[in-house]
Amino acid sequence: MTSETASAPRGRGRPRSEQARIAILAAARDLVLESGYEQLTIQAIAARAGSSRQTVYRWWTSKALIVADLVMDGELRLPTATIPDTGDLEADLVAWLDGATSAFADPQVGPLVLALVTAATDSEAEARLLYEMSTGPFHGALVDRLLRGADAGQIATSADPTAMADALIGTVLFRALTPGARPAPSAAVVRTLLGIPRA
Amino acid sequence: MTSETASAPRGRGRPRSEQARIAILAAARDLVLESGYEQLTIQAIAARAGSSRQTVYRWWTSKALIVADLVMDGELRLPTATIPDTGDLEADLVAWLDGATSAFADPQVGPLVLALVTAATDSEAEARLLYEMSTGPFHGALVDRLLRGADAGQIATSADPTAMADALIGTVLFRALTPGARPAPSAAVVRTLLGIPRA
Repeated sequence: MTSETASAPRGRGRPRSEQARIAILAAARDLVLESGYEQLTIQAIAARAGSSRQTVYRWWTSKALIVADLVMDGELRLPTATIPDTGDLEADLVAWLDGATSAFADPQVGPLVLALVTAATDSEAEARLLYEMSTGPFHGALVDRLLRGADAGQIATSADPTAMADALIGTVLFRALTPGARPAPSAAVVRTLLGIPRA
Repeated sequence: MTSETASAPRGRGRPRSEQARIAILAAARDLVLESGYEQLTIQAIAARAGSSRQTVYRWWTSKALIVADLVMDGELRLPTATIPDTGDLEADLVAWLDGATSAFADPQVGPLVLALVTAATDSEAEARLLYEMSTGPFHGALVDRLLRGADAGQIATSADPTAMADALIGTVLFRALTPGARPAPSAAVVRTLLGIPRA
């Protein structure tokens, strides 16, 4: 939290540290878009930005937190947390599971989202920020959709929408983190989790 | 896969590279036990082992893979994948969820298991190994327990035990990866996931 503005301005009037910070973010964005998150290293970011690893570490303790800043700045886009609502809860959740599973399988999206979800940080505020930009909005949207389904009598009133949302997101995460081919989650999975008997 | 045995033996007759490898593993084990996985860095391991980062990276591409070797060698212990079987499926799964949630909250265990689960690797064989030493055995044990519960008529025959096991492990993972206090998964959560009406 030390002030960076004391260093002499140069270039377009930005302080040198601000120029370095912008160059690092641009380098990280370009590298992610070119080669994906898994290949991203602090070393490569520093080299591309004409900076040093030490300078990068001055502002960010991990590559996940650099990516978090890029997401916040709108420089990297993540899937939006929209759950379909056609009025048929089971069909809507099957469609969402399909979409979420495909998104995680996409090399341009999956590793990025997983990185935000699994980024280790000692800061509670950073942890909350990472959650809010990864699984948090999906969890909130799922709970809302499940509550509308409960109102429509499509799941048992005894069901716990928070637990169901945990289980639905958890299923997607567990499958994304598990190697090897698995069949995509099907209508049977959703019926199992929602406690709906086989049709 | 180059042979290391060509270098001149010294010390107790072990090749120098083998001595370095053993020192690195011992250093990593000691650092994990002293300060936990989150604090572990390749830099600190190399310093403690009297080695260099380059030497560490010769054998392991990430700290998670060093830890994986320590688990394989029995130098670090992880929770065993035992699911209680008292004959009451619901009570057994509540007990397991309680235990798994507590294990993830333990700073000596949770970050270690999460690291194995979330470790990024380009190698399919490494990914499978990491799975087999982290969530894989739990998934297998849960499916077995659920099948016995289905035989006993405690869950619907239409239920998919693999989907339920995905959801149970997924719930634990999602909660472990989500910041902030949440109530521990309760009997109501298990009833929801098993499709059992409220008692």
